[in-house]
Amino acid sequence: MEEKYIESLIQATANVIETMALVKVVAGKPYKKQDESSYGAVSGMIGMAGSNVHGNLVVSFQEPTILKIVNNMLCENYSQLGNEVVDAVGEITNMICGGAKNNLSQHGVNIGMASPVTLVGQAQINRSKKTPVYVIPFSTEAGDFVVEAQLETLAE
Amino acid sequence: MEEKYIESLIQATANVIETMALVKVVAGKPYKKQDESSYGAVSGMIGMAGSNVHGNLVVSFQEPTILKIVNNMLCENYSQLGNEVVDAVGEITNMICGGAKNNLSQHGVNIGMASPVTLVGQAQINRSKKTPVYVIPFSTEAGDFVVEAQLETLAE
Repeated sequence: MEEKYIESLIQATANVIETMALVKVVAGKPYKKQDESSYGAVSGMIGMAGSNVHGNLVVSFQEPTILKIVNNMLCENYSQLGNEVVDAVGEITNMICGGAKNNLSQHGVNIGMASPVTLVGQAQINRSKKTPVYVIPFSTEAGDFVVEAQLETLAE
Repeated sequence: MEEKYIESLIQATANVIETMALVKVVAGKPYKKQDESSYGAVSGMIGMAGSNVHGNLVVSFQEPTILKIVNNMLCENYSQLGNEVVDAVGEITNMICGGAKNNLSQHGVNIGMASPVTLVGQAQINRSKKTPVYVIPFSTEAGDFVVEAQLETLAE
């Protein structure tokens, strides 16, 4: 996957979490995903479809991380993954994907976004083996989360 | 969701399963989904993104149904949901979505497809509450499956 995709995702993710939740994030080194298991306790997924690229994005949070982020965002004090927190994961995934879409458009990549889907609990998320899945790890003071992206360039 | 979406999905689903697997399918009456749990033992999901509509499609199979379909398609004799069967669910989801996309383009609806993701096991698949999810039930001689669609018209 091209460097511009990774950079666009890191920028969009840091911008959304730091602006909306006032939680500082530090991006780690991206790597290729080797297994199918979901990283965190709750995951947001969104499909992406453009004229020359398509794929999907998964944002997956450890429980303490997402509770801190959502509590900061919504001025709440949730202590478990209820409906409000899960809905917020969908919104956060949507905002990160939207930010990446805007960043990519500045590189001439135009891509449409599907609507987000969220999964609670550890899940086995199987994606096509033809295109690698890249994982970008992020750490915060409250715990870690990852952004996983699979983007395939389509024949013109 | 508009009638043309439901009709396009029924046609595409019957066409893919009957042509690729030589399994006769009968569509039941579509209804609005009331809960979050996945219908079947294995599900394929694909995001859809167009200029004026976006959403997602889930195709979810009972285990005997998908084993029969995949065994017919691939001339195999699989008796459990291994990698080959799960990969085939992704391909079938892709074909159904591609067929619906083609049908919809004849109605003037142009929509792009993300890449498919598959989930094994019963999962809690949460979608936006703002737009209803429609379920189209299908029956075959080997068992049942469903196509779930959530499509939202976007502001121009």
